Amino acid sequence: MTASLLEQLIDAFRILPGVGQKTAQRMAYHVLERDRDGGQRLADALASAVERIGHCARCRDFSETEICATCANGSRDVHLLCAVESPADRLVIEQATGYRGYYFVLQGRLSPLDGIGPRELGLEKLAARLAEGEVQELVIATNPTVEGEATAHYLAQLARQHRVKPTRLAHGVPLGGELEYVDRGTLSHAFGSRSEMPL
Amino acid sequence: MTASLLEQLIDAFRILPGVGQKTAQRMAYHVLERDRDGGQRLADALASAVERIGHCARCRDFSETEICATCANGSRDVHLLCAVESPADRLVIEQATGYRGYYFVLQGRLSPLDGIGPRELGLEKLAARLAEGEVQELVIATNPTVEGEATAHYLAQLARQHRVKPTRLAHGVPLGGELEYVDRGTLSHAFGSRSEMPL
Repeated sequence: MTASLLEQLIDAFRILPGVGQKTAQRMAYHVLERDRDGGQRLADALASAVERIGHCARCRDFSETEICATCANGSRDVHLLCAVESPADRLVIEQATGYRGYYFVLQGRLSPLDGIGPRELGLEKLAARLAEGEVQELVIATNPTVEGEATAHYLAQLARQHRVKPTRLAHGVPLGGELEYVDRGTLSHAFGSRSEMPL
Repeated sequence: MTASLLEQLIDAFRILPGVGQKTAQRMAYHVLERDRDGGQRLADALASAVERIGHCARCRDFSETEICATCANGSRDVHLLCAVESPADRLVIEQATGYRGYYFVLQGRLSPLDGIGPRELGLEKLAARLAEGEVQELVIATNPTVEGEATAHYLAQLARQHRVKPTRLAHGVPLGGELEYVDRGTLSHAFGSRSEMPL
């Protein structure tokens, strides 16, 4: 016996992150009971996105065109390049900071156990970009995890080979955080990196 | 400027219950980075479901066919009919209990303020079903909320008009619950409805 359309839909929702059987059921019922137009729109958006969104040939970010809008924007600072692990990281940096250089999206981090090496992260493309000679500073914004730090060290070496200055995001106490609840590693790092207060 | 496919996709995910901007972003990136096949499958399942799933002409549950599989199943007990608010309620009763009668799905509950009256719940169809004379007991399984209780009283009256016995799910202390944490209304009801322990 083949599964009904409803069962197929519930099953399909489970591909989404954080969605189990119960949530998938709720989503399917919600769409069918309350928002069939929205469901159709989601179906169309998904199909178009899966088919037409590829990777930018220059920065590896998601893009519908061969070169993404950011890379195609000639008014940004060509001396700055920021390496991030994922498109989501790129987005949050773009939204939260005043950074107006270019980006390079690794689409992952070095993880030899999972078979992710320099080739999977497109580092030959990054090396070629650094070799062009325009980039002066590589801002390494990988996550402060074990694998992210290893990737950062690898990228820093790569940058130095091309006489590009590698920089790393500052670590420290988060704004609005309370010292009591900050983990020891962060606190120790923040203490060691203390700076003189401005007047 | 029109939104990019990625923005459209993120926006479309927000129609799902409990999905805000952040979760929608995570879902879109997950599909694009890790599971494009699953994304395509979800798009197809959604489009088919929205287009082809309607309501059973007999019980108002979701169905791809005019009469749903449960109503078309002639081996169930025709003397029992269970009224539930939603298809999800029907499903959970079917899965959790040994009930093998038929169902009637109200697709809502009486709520005059929201413009939901007997007509919106298809009660004339339920009345016709009770008038057929086969049903002997109407199990009223609406939710134990204010509106669900009001609906239950209305349904009980309707059942009595057709000489059908209305019954209601038992209220009481949930299995595995601790008395200390049960709300007063439930505890008071459970105390009043106490029964002699079997030998």
